[in-house]
Formats: sequence, C-alpha cells, structure tokens
Amino acid sequence: MTTLLTAAQVQSYLADIFPQFNARITALTPNSAILELLADDAHLRPGGTVSGPTLMALADAAMYVAILGNLGQVALAVTTNLNISFYRKAGPGLLRAEARLLKMGKRLAVGDVLLFGADSTESIAHASLTYSIPDTSQADTAP
Amino acid sequence: MTTLLTAAQVQSYLADIFPQFNARITALTPNSAILELLADDAHLRPGGTVSGPTLMALADAAMYVAILGNLGQVALAVTTNLNISFYRKAGPGLLRAEARLLKMGKRLAVGDVLLFGADSTESIAHASLTYSIPDTSQADTAP
Amino acid sequence: MTTLLTAAQVQSYLADIFPQFNARITALTPNSAILELLADDAHLRPGGTVSGPTLMALADAAMYVAILGNLGQVALAVTTNLNISFYRKAGPGLLRAEARLLKMGKRLAVGDVLLFGADSTESIAHASLTYSIPDTSQADTAP
Amino acid sequence: MTTLLTAAQVQSYLADIFPQFNARITALTPNSAILELLADDAHLRPGGTVSGPTLMALADAAMYVAILGNLGQVALAVTTNLNISFYRKAGPGLLRAEARLLKMGKRLAVGDVLLFGADSTESIAHASLTYSIPDTSQADTAP
Repeated sequence: MTTLLTAAQVQSYLADIFPQFNARITALTPNSAILELLADDAHLRPGGTVSGPTLMALADAAMYVAILGNLGQVALAVTTNLNISFYRKAGPGLLRAEARLLKMGKRLAVGDVLLFGADSTESIAHASLTYSIPDTSQADTAP
Repeated sequence: MTTLLTAAQVQSYLADIFPQFNARITALTPNSAILELLADDAHLRPGGTVSGPTLMALADAAMYVAILGNLGQVALAVTTNLNISFYRKAGPGLLRAEARLLKMGKRLAVGDVLLFGADSTESIAHASLTYSIPDTSQADTAP
Repeated sequence: MTTLLTAAQVQSYLADIFPQFNARITALTPNSAILELLADDAHLRPGGTVSGPTLMALADAAMYVAILGNLGQVALAVTTNLNISFYRKAGPGLLRAEARLLKMGKRLAVGDVLLFGADSTESIAHASLTYSIPDTSQADTAP
Repeated sequence: MTTLLTAAQVQSYLADIFPQFNARITALTPNSAILELLADDAHLRPGGTVSGPTLMALADAAMYVAILGNLGQVALAVTTNLNISFYRKAGPGLLRAEARLLKMGKRLAVGDVLLFGADSTESIAHASLTYSIPDTSQADTAP
C-alpha cells in the first residue's frame, strides 16, 4: 500500500508550519511513520541528556505525520491527549521516532510512538497519543 | 530464550492470588506475555460490549505476568501508572492481551499491552503501564 | 447551580445499567460528583489492599456521573482514555471518589478524579479521563 | 508552612540549568507551585495557538519546581511519566501553570498541573506527572 501524500509532500508541509522543527521523515505508510531528529545543544539538559520536551515534540510530530499519511491529505488534526514514559537516557545524536496508527476513526485517531536514541537499539521512551480529527467538510480545504 | 518461571508456574501463582480472575496465560517470554480471558455476562455493559474495567484488569494482569516471566521469580510488583485508550468495541467471547516489556529496571518496569476482541484481528484498546519493583532484598522472599 | 438530573435519578440509572456496582452518589453538581464505594473482600488483593481495577472502575463511574449531571440527561458517553496513578495503599472500608469536570465539550469531556481510602485524609490515587460524547441527535433519545 | 528553598532560589537554579526557558515562579509552597510563561511567536502554531510542546514543557517545569520546594533542596529528579490532555486553545500572552503535589515519596513523586491561557479563567490543559527521586545519598550533593 502506498500513501496518497508522499513523505516528501508531508515533509514540505511540515517545513511550512513548523519552520523551527527539523525532524526528517524517513518512512511513511498508511499506518506508520518514522521520523529522525538530530539532537544538538538546544535539545539537551545539563548533563548532556536529551530533554523531555524534545522527545514529546518528536513523538507528537511522528503521530501527526502518520495521520496525514493515512488521510492522504493535510488536515487540521489536533492532539487531545499525550501520555509518555521516559525510561532510558539519550545523549546528543540522531533520535528516531517510530509511530504506528492503532485506530483511524472519523473523529479520533489513536496511536503510539517508540523513541530511540543514537547510541542504542533499545527504545528510550514510549508515547500514546490521541488526535481529534476535524469534520470531513472542513478537511476538504486541504491543499 | 526461556523464562525461569514457566507459564504454568505463573498461572498457578495467579490462581492463588487472584482466584476470581480467570485469565489464561498462552505465551510467556522474557519480554512478553499473552493472556486470554473469556468475557461473559459479568464482563459486559448494557448493549453487550465488554466493560472498560474488564479490559483494564486484563491489561494489568498481562503486564504483571510479563514482569514475573522476566524476573524469573514472584515479586510484589505494584502498578504505579496505567494509561489506557479504548477505540473499538468488543462483544462477548475470548479477549486477548499481548504485553511487551519495554524496560525492566531495578526500580521501575515499563511496558505496553494491546487488547483484542473475539471477532476481529484489529486491536480494541491499548494500555501503557509502569510497575514499581520492590528492592531485591525483599523480592528474595519469592518462592 | 443545580443539576437537571438529581443524584437520586442518576443513582437509579446506574443501578439499572451496572447492577453489580454498588457505588453511592453522595454529591452532584454541574461540574463535580462524589461517589462512595464500600470495599469488601471482593475488592481486595492478597495482603488486604484495594485492587487497582476496583479504583479504576470507581474513578470511571465518578467521571460518568459528573458528565450525566452536567448534561442533565442520560447519554451514551463512553470512556476513550483513562490515566491513573496509584501512590498510596488503601485497606477495606469506604472509598471515596471526587470527580471534577474540566471541560464539557460537544464531542469530548475531560476531567479528573481524586480517590481516597477509608483511613486517611490523603488521596491514594488520581485519574484523568476523557469521554466521547455522542452526537446530540443521538443523545436526544435519553429518557 | 514555608519552603526551605525560596521561590527566588529555585528561580535562580532554573535559570542556570534551563537558560532558554523563561518561566517565572510566582508562588511556591511545600505542596504547590505556580509558574508563568509569556507565550510569544516562538511558542505558537500556525493560526496563533500555543503549541502542545510549550504547554508540556511548562507543566513539566511547574511540577519540578513543586518538588524542589517540597524537598527543600535541589535534586536530580527526572520525569518518568507525563500525561496531558489539551481541551481549550490559548493564544499568545501569559500562560499560567498551577502544580500540586499529591504524593512526595522516597522514590516517586506524583502530582498534577492545571494550565491556563491569558484570556480566560478556564483551564486549557491538564497534566499528570510522575517523577523519580534519586536516592537520598545522591541528593546530598545539593547546594
């Protein structure tokens, strides 16, 4: 299966709306997305570990990209709930977020995201997210 | 890899401490567990859908079994946080819970559980759980 | 402000749909509800502490009652997300759940619940819940 | 009751470790903290609403400040779980976060945070957080 929007199209859209967020989409299917983000000094806590808000933002973006890939169009989906557990530390380097859609409903989308640091094959954090999907009549205004 | 405690041993332990909970362990590895529960009238809401508390209890038990399998001994682990999203309905029949351990630390264990109904290959709910693990010195009292 | 449905009316409705759940509504306002549940042997874990699923079910019911009190009618609201942290133990006795509505939207209701044991003024667990509210056209079928 | 660390001391510590985060502590008690953050362009999404990661970071900081106020010393507490629900939009202006500690244990601290926008007395988001507290022997290195 392919997505109606390519990874490059979603990437271009993200760059428009989140110009300060440099995550790169490395995979996109109708039910999943993988994003990478280079964690540099701006993303680190004292001690050199990646900050919680950096991981939250990356998880949020990965889920959003997965939703756009599934919908095949740009939609004004908004996060209604995010739950994240942090259980390993990550240092500077390339972070990776693997999002999977568990349910793509008319009103709500549910999914989860595993986060990985640069230096390990083990995940460092796990997030569960719910997005609210706008009415189709509104989503028709997508580009 | 095998677990130090077999599924049958954990099953026997569960029957002792949760005599009213009839979930059956169908798989156990050091990082995962699968449980099944036959949802009957006692587990249903009006309208015939499985109740939320039934799914929460099953998710909680699946994670607990996965922890015991990993530790290789019975421990007084307690749930400190449970987050669950419900996104499809399930009717009466055989429920299945698939738990995976994401981190087995000295003090905290983190994992998630996918729940499935009898009539679908799609998951119906997803839970993220954190357990607090007692000090090893206390856990030494395990059978 | 008063609620369109009295506590007694909601209580009677609960008894119809959850005949096995003996929680009692002791307060109901448009934005809050208090429920009590007598925790007996059926609700206890080995060691005599109230089980997690008992507290989850009580939190879920308290939020549901608060929603009904706010809507002023019976609605088929369903839990979409429940997050609960357990941080003190409770023994047998009268449990109390205090629910407050944080947002009563057209599609989603958000609130939280503090849970108390019989033997302390300190809370033992805290839950955050999201309910999905059915379309008004459907809710009009309420009694 | 007063806190062993004053709001000004905690503020000074925050400025050291989070130089990019401009939240201001406006109240601090042993069981609560209030922080304010001026949301400007850097914190806004297209459409002019405050971004989710901004609110998550503010909630996380408010809970951290409450923990420091309670401990009376600087500790290397780390977030292990954060659950946040977003239910109203906020525009640019002064955000406020009200954190309350529900449990300050030896190993875990649990609390929740209500978030408010500039233009309303109603809350816009609610977060529940768990922090892991390092062993006292390590915390002794506090200033």
